[in-house]
Amino acid sequence: MKKGVTFCEVGEQFSDFLLIKSSTRGTASNGKPFLTLMLQDQSGEIEAKLWDAGPEDETTYKAENIVKVLGDVQSYRGRQQLKIKKIRPSTDTDSVSIADFLETAPQPKEELMDEINSCIFEMKNSNLQRVTRHLVKKHQVAFLEYPAATKNHHEFVSGLAYHVVYMLKLAKSMCSIYPSLDADLLYAGVILHDLGKTTELSGPISTQYTVEGNLIGHISLMVTEIADAAKELDIHTEEMTMLQHLVLSHHGKGEWGSPKPPMLKEAEILHYLDNIDAKMNMMDRALERTKPGDYTERIFALDNRKFYKPFYQNQS
Amino acid sequence: MKKGVTFCEVGEQFSDFLLIKSSTRGTASNGKPFLTLMLQDQSGEIEAKLWDAGPEDETTYKAENIVKVLGDVQSYRGRQQLKIKKIRPSTDTDSVSIADFLETAPQPKEELMDEINSCIFEMKNSNLQRVTRHLVKKHQVAFLEYPAATKNHHEFVSGLAYHVVYMLKLAKSMCSIYPSLDADLLYAGVILHDLGKTTELSGPISTQYTVEGNLIGHISLMVTEIADAAKELDIHTEEMTMLQHLVLSHHGKGEWGSPKPPMLKEAEILHYLDNIDAKMNMMDRALERTKPGDYTERIFALDNRKFYKPFYQNQS
Amino acid sequence: MKKGVTFCEVGEQFSDFLLIKSSTRGTASNGKPFLTLMLQDQSGEIEAKLWDAGPEDETTYKAENIVKVLGDVQSYRGRQQLKIKKIRPSTDTDSVSIADFLETAPQPKEELMDEINSCIFEMKNSNLQRVTRHLVKKHQVAFLEYPAATKNHHEFVSGLAYHVVYMLKLAKSMCSIYPSLDADLLYAGVILHDLGKTTELSGPISTQYTVEGNLIGHISLMVTEIADAAKELDIHTEEMTMLQHLVLSHHGKGEWGSPKPPMLKEAEILHYLDNIDAKMNMMDRALERTKPGDYTERIFALDNRKFYKPFYQNQS
Amino acid sequence: MKKGVTFCEVGEQFSDFLLIKSSTRGTASNGKPFLTLMLQDQSGEIEAKLWDAGPEDETTYKAENIVKVLGDVQSYRGRQQLKIKKIRPSTDTDSVSIADFLETAPQPKEELMDEINSCIFEMKNSNLQRVTRHLVKKHQVAFLEYPAATKNHHEFVSGLAYHVVYMLKLAKSMCSIYPSLDADLLYAGVILHDLGKTTELSGPISTQYTVEGNLIGHISLMVTEIADAAKELDIHTEEMTMLQHLVLSHHGKGEWGSPKPPMLKEAEILHYLDNIDAKMNMMDRALERTKPGDYTERIFALDNRKFYKPFYQNQS
Amino acid sequence: MKKGVTFCEVGEQFSDFLLIKSSTRGTASNGKPFLTLMLQDQSGEIEAKLWDAGPEDETTYKAENIVKVLGDVQSYRGRQQLKIKKIRPSTDTDSVSIADFLETAPQPKEELMDEINSCIFEMKNSNLQRVTRHLVKKHQVAFLEYPAATKNHHEFVSGLAYHVVYMLKLAKSMCSIYPSLDADLLYAGVILHDLGKTTELSGPISTQYTVEGNLIGHISLMVTEIADAAKELDIHTEEMTMLQHLVLSHHGKGEWGSPKPPMLKEAEILHYLDNIDAKMNMMDRALERTKPGDYTERIFALDNRKFYKPFYQNQS
Amino acid sequence: MKKGVTFCEVGEQFSDFLLIKSSTRGTASNGKPFLTLMLQDQSGEIEAKLWDAGPEDETTYKAENIVKVLGDVQSYRGRQQLKIKKIRPSTDTDSVSIADFLETAPQPKEELMDEINSCIFEMKNSNLQRVTRHLVKKHQVAFLEYPAATKNHHEFVSGLAYHVVYMLKLAKSMCSIYPSLDADLLYAGVILHDLGKTTELSGPISTQYTVEGNLIGHISLMVTEIADAAKELDIHTEEMTMLQHLVLSHHGKGEWGSPKPPMLKEAEILHYLDNIDAKMNMMDRALERTKPGDYTERIFALDNRKFYKPFYQNQS
Repeated sequence: MKKGVTFCEVGEQFSDFLLIKSSTRGTASNGKPFLTLMLQDQSGEIEAKLWDAGPEDETTYKAENIVKVLGDVQSYRGRQQLKIKKIRPSTDTDSVSIADFLETAPQPKEELMDEINSCIFEMKNSNLQRVTRHLVKKHQVAFLEYPAATKNHHEFVSGLAYHVVYMLKLAKSMCSIYPSLDADLLYAGVILHDLGKTTELSGPISTQYTVEGNLIGHISLMVTEIADAAKELDIHTEEMTMLQHLVLSHHGKGEWGSPKPPMLKEAEILHYLDNIDAKMNMMDRALERTKPGDYTERIFALDNRKFYKPFYQNQS
Repeated sequence: MKKGVTFCEVGEQFSDFLLIKSSTRGTASNGKPFLTLMLQDQSGEIEAKLWDAGPEDETTYKAENIVKVLGDVQSYRGRQQLKIKKIRPSTDTDSVSIADFLETAPQPKEELMDEINSCIFEMKNSNLQRVTRHLVKKHQVAFLEYPAATKNHHEFVSGLAYHVVYMLKLAKSMCSIYPSLDADLLYAGVILHDLGKTTELSGPISTQYTVEGNLIGHISLMVTEIADAAKELDIHTEEMTMLQHLVLSHHGKGEWGSPKPPMLKEAEILHYLDNIDAKMNMMDRALERTKPGDYTERIFALDNRKFYKPFYQNQS
Repeated sequence: MKKGVTFCEVGEQFSDFLLIKSSTRGTASNGKPFLTLMLQDQSGEIEAKLWDAGPEDETTYKAENIVKVLGDVQSYRGRQQLKIKKIRPSTDTDSVSIADFLETAPQPKEELMDEINSCIFEMKNSNLQRVTRHLVKKHQVAFLEYPAATKNHHEFVSGLAYHVVYMLKLAKSMCSIYPSLDADLLYAGVILHDLGKTTELSGPISTQYTVEGNLIGHISLMVTEIADAAKELDIHTEEMTMLQHLVLSHHGKGEWGSPKPPMLKEAEILHYLDNIDAKMNMMDRALERTKPGDYTERIFALDNRKFYKPFYQNQS
Repeated sequence: MKKGVTFCEVGEQFSDFLLIKSSTRGTASNGKPFLTLMLQDQSGEIEAKLWDAGPEDETTYKAENIVKVLGDVQSYRGRQQLKIKKIRPSTDTDSVSIADFLETAPQPKEELMDEINSCIFEMKNSNLQRVTRHLVKKHQVAFLEYPAATKNHHEFVSGLAYHVVYMLKLAKSMCSIYPSLDADLLYAGVILHDLGKTTELSGPISTQYTVEGNLIGHISLMVTEIADAAKELDIHTEEMTMLQHLVLSHHGKGEWGSPKPPMLKEAEILHYLDNIDAKMNMMDRALERTKPGDYTERIFALDNRKFYKPFYQNQS
Repeated sequence: MKKGVTFCEVGEQFSDFLLIKSSTRGTASNGKPFLTLMLQDQSGEIEAKLWDAGPEDETTYKAENIVKVLGDVQSYRGRQQLKIKKIRPSTDTDSVSIADFLETAPQPKEELMDEINSCIFEMKNSNLQRVTRHLVKKHQVAFLEYPAATKNHHEFVSGLAYHVVYMLKLAKSMCSIYPSLDADLLYAGVILHDLGKTTELSGPISTQYTVEGNLIGHISLMVTEIADAAKELDIHTEEMTMLQHLVLSHHGKGEWGSPKPPMLKEAEILHYLDNIDAKMNMMDRALERTKPGDYTERIFALDNRKFYKPFYQNQS
Repeated sequence: MKKGVTFCEVGEQFSDFLLIKSSTRGTASNGKPFLTLMLQDQSGEIEAKLWDAGPEDETTYKAENIVKVLGDVQSYRGRQQLKIKKIRPSTDTDSVSIADFLETAPQPKEELMDEINSCIFEMKNSNLQRVTRHLVKKHQVAFLEYPAATKNHHEFVSGLAYHVVYMLKLAKSMCSIYPSLDADLLYAGVILHDLGKTTELSGPISTQYTVEGNLIGHISLMVTEIADAAKELDIHTEEMTMLQHLVLSHHGKGEWGSPKPPMLKEAEILHYLDNIDAKMNMMDRALERTKPGDYTERIFALDNRKFYKPFYQNQS
């Protein structure tokens, strides 16, 4: 398998196809227009400048097009940049497609769906089970394709489902260590907690917030969806309020977007599981690009900390 | 009209009927049981101790009963207390009823309803008008009887509707000063912003939080109700999201219970109107009991400030 | 009327007179000097680069000069920039003057003065009235010309008086809704609250903080002025302390610059009125430049929020 | 098994032996001395007043003595109190000993030691293994008897080791879910993170902070102990710094007592595991005393939240 | 010299004259009135209860009267209390006067005045010298008698001048270590920084805040006084603004009451000197009552910390 | 003496030797490589661009080399930049050495050592004296050469010792004003408080954090060193814990890096002395470059404040 563009070192030459994620026009200090291209493959993204770009270039090299590039990897203000030597749009004979360039969860979505379904299948409380199954079915396509966020963690195709599957693994081990936990409530909470993202976000490519996402948010959207589903399935028991509470409180605090703090044991734990999996994902991805004896870049979503990668190596 | 119990000065004798708001048993330092009674009339409440209270007294003097009391107003740790000299339960021939002892909004609820309805009637946007009318009708009885809160401000019978009526007066003057405001959206937001309190709270007497109130909260409950109403009335326009946003963001910040901060001009203004009317109510009620040249008690919900009442007197 | 420069869209050509607000020399990556010009008309300001600028250009194109420019509006790092094609200094025959290029309150200053005076005239408390009139007279010229701030809100010629006039409108409606408010004290507080800005700031053009403004601040400067005025007018009554308190506390909290929080009802309300009018001004001006369905830029002084402009349109 | 004193309801009579945890002299309002006794059994503690207590009573009823009590459980200011009817000191023939009255971890200390040792045994990195074993041996007696804290969580005999054993269970499941974690480093961190408490605290009975505990703290004490042990064992590799860092940063933030925030993936996870096990312990113990449909008391160490216990019941 | 009441240990008998600082009436649980007396001598204050107090006792034992008391020092809720056995009002033949019972600075006020005057005399900048001398003269009587605060630090007769004298000692040593400091400005700032307290507070006995103190505060009062003095002395130089700034900013931050943070080197240092001397005073007084090997009570104004007094003893 | 490069004004020509502090390669908008050089002499540092830099230039002009430069001082984005006209590497015949270009404390290190030693000599408590002398000796070379920090204050050769010497001057004057202070403990704390920086930082040139510095920090490193030294010198008295506490708490608060707040009077004072000397150093150095009537740049480590330099001039 070829090495992704973000794994090239400064000074290396790169020659391969890349997807244009965004293309912005600017004017150079000599007065001539240029394009700032954000190019990506499955390993991540890199910036490149296309100098002396005429009006036709703006059309040729716009977002969501695929290009063949030859260039040198350079460093600019501490970040890597690709200095373009040759560039051309891809043609039909190149046999490349957008999906080849998008970062995707390391597990296929069918497997992810299976793991989630088997967990729903195990639930003993039929009220929680029916509502969970109903909502997963309703949003199934998006659930399996959406990222879990626009940035920071799991910001890749199927990121949402992948995040949920890892949280389910954590939830299972928690329930076996602490049997006083209500496993069904916790599983339902894990599966639904971020499902509102399928309304909050625009989709898996060039992901942005929708108007409903900005003004209402995935938490409140999901609380309403649960009420709706319960009404439709004619369930009027206390579990529905508990489940709504889990979704409502999973950000943990008002200043992090939850209108109520966790007031159920399972809600408190859900908040922790969400955090742990998100942070593991961020730390692993940052450390993957770091050499032993060195530090990652500062990670904004981890209180702007940098992490150290030791020289010696043990692994689980 | 008789002076309420909270307007008596230390040293004065008090003789009248009072409603028992709560009654709690304790044990005195001599080992004998006593009752701590919280007694109220329309002016507010006062604490009293009933010493040497036998088991039958616990039954006779329990919450929501009315009593005739003769006693002296004393000061205990800086707060007034009623020293009971004589006490007896009320009888049928006393012709007193609970409603006589509850603090109530200074305007009758019919008038409040009229003011709210006339405002709904004036709305030009029929989508906002229909949803608002639908929800007001659905909760009308509670809307006119509930307090706006369990403490701090408008914590009296019809407090919720009274608060809304004053906010509507403010909203009208705002819209005439700043014509760029969307009056219909603002009016709808004012009328519905706290309507979820009719589910969050238990009712107008001995008001407490319900389980739904504690775990979901009036803001999220109302957002779901608006979605429901819109579905029922088959309205699918952008205004519904805007209205949900106004309710959602009316506490202004995450740490104050709003999962989203105001992102519409009318939402920002709604937050201000809510604050101004609540604070005017708290300050007026505290200053009413304060003598010129003196300070109110510290008011917790106003950042624990105390307010000064000047000697000289101007009025609007 | 011609469209202001800030209303041009990217790609449009612009040809008109503009005022140079500031001119800064830099060195291009080819080693040649250039000028960064900030150009303004009544609609606001735009940046432009003048390449290959010799020493004589620095003299010709310095701040407070007027120029005729032909150029294209471009986008640079998400902000608009004017690419200069032709530029020349204005001449006497062009008949343009600085005042034509400064943003100014939408009401003439004579009208603003009339509204303020009529409010002073209505005051019944002669002590408050005399001090207010005295201080307004003393600073009248500056009061009518100064902006209310160097940035964020009402940062235009006559912005200070315009801000006061709108706050007076709000104050009047508040006093009619809540008659317990002391209207005279509130009016005096509104009129004087920011008058210290005439000492704090340097003037209506290229507004900056004076040394006294930086080290003492408009709040403390005005408190001293009120003491001075009271002494001169031989007024020694409690109202003077109350009025000083209103000015002192109008920022609401220590961290916002008020050494005392509001401890009078009117002081609390003054703080709200100041906030509401400042925020309405910021939101209106940002939304004016925003298309329906889109968001304003993030507004730093509004907690860095962005505001949404709905598609549908209702108006008061 | 007899029901512990803290499980008695208000109104019930209690008759059994209890350990005096503390005894404080006061003067009643009638001028006579009395003793405030804090009495405990394995279920927890309850306050009682001993009226008219002479000087000899102060000697008889002092801390760490055992007494036989007959009394009624009453409510005082919302907390339970025991009204003493009869009391006498225990005698040799009563065959009771202090250990019978101390709350103790639900697992015997031999088992706890076995679990910890088997985990040390599994470690593959011999440097980490040797230091961990060395320090556990050095403090073994205290490690198995000390509580994990003076209050809030695991504040019982063997609480420290019990807390460590549960964190090890969590650590094992984390390492199997996220194989990129360095299991040896994480296990060593879990085992040693709170071992400094054996110097910070005075012991398992009437636990208090030592002077070293107050002025240096268990975190810094342990960092020094690791340096010492490494020197003694002649280990000079990078792992020692990593292990010190895990201990140093396990409180997560400066304001929570860690001079450095986690900068290793395992340090971040250690902080989470510590939190989760402490919170599960607090929530479980509070909910155990709560009836379905009711709330726990507010728990200070959980941001003063109260937790709800639902009516319906699912369990893992 | 006799040992003050606050130096008595629990269990000791006390027999001496004391000043009644405050006297508050309450009702005992047997229904009889009693008085809570706060009694003081130069060592500090102690609470006492006078049971079965008739109306004549309220007159006899009111604030600012002196009494002869025989009683036992007891402990109540961790604080000392005096159990009265005998009490009588003082008579003329007792030859005691209020001044004997007030805590007073350890240096006579004439000496304090001399130290301050000699510092003013040393000033070389005549503008700063004249204003400082003018204001010290104007408030001289109060300056020498007032405390520096109502509680926390230097809350004794002449506390204000004593605090200033120690800050001057610190200021002198600072100026000799860092010669770049403007000594005259710093001395003037030290002398005037708290002089507004003579208006803010009611006086040296039963010290309370005045209305001006509450609503304007000593900082703003002094800024106005400096402006006034400068006008009267016809000084219009930059130093006056600098001096006002020193007073204005001496609390260091908005949330601590300064509308501007220090923006002059001398202002920054003034803030530190004020803090150091206040804290030394608090720590010394708390440690004086603490035994070696023990901790002081928690001191609220020192972030609620407690301080340790070591066993071993070194002294400067 | 020649004027340092940072004292040149914009527009001046500069011709002298400079040390290359860092050299970073970039690509210009014309596609050609260039070097960004950070050049320094004893007055501070200035940025310069070397355009069209070939591979051999990267070798010639790398960090820690000395160059002869002819250039013009220009302004770029408000900061000074040197526009290079001629540049060449220094040769042996130039007789320049690195030490000539490093900013150094204004006192030679022998003098600094003498002042510190004479203070140790004066100590009366032999335990504190021996430990202090032992640790100073152990780290003597680094102690006299290291800076006190990488930026903000005393970031120059011998900065650490210079900072300690000034803090000792402050400590002596404090002990003479407040004789209750334990001078020996305070002196020992001053001398050792930052000595851990010799492990935390990499050295006096191009100073960076070591791995131990980042993960453990100078505070914890020093606490361990004191324990070690005490063990080696066989001292087991309470003073060692006190001394560790002074080092541990000298940052004052958890969020500033101290795991314990000061709980000894001397610890509180140490924190203040550290702050005062650091701030004096920052303010003096910033004001030195500021003209009368102007402000310094905003200083991040002083809460981002700017300081004013008055026109008139008094000095101590």
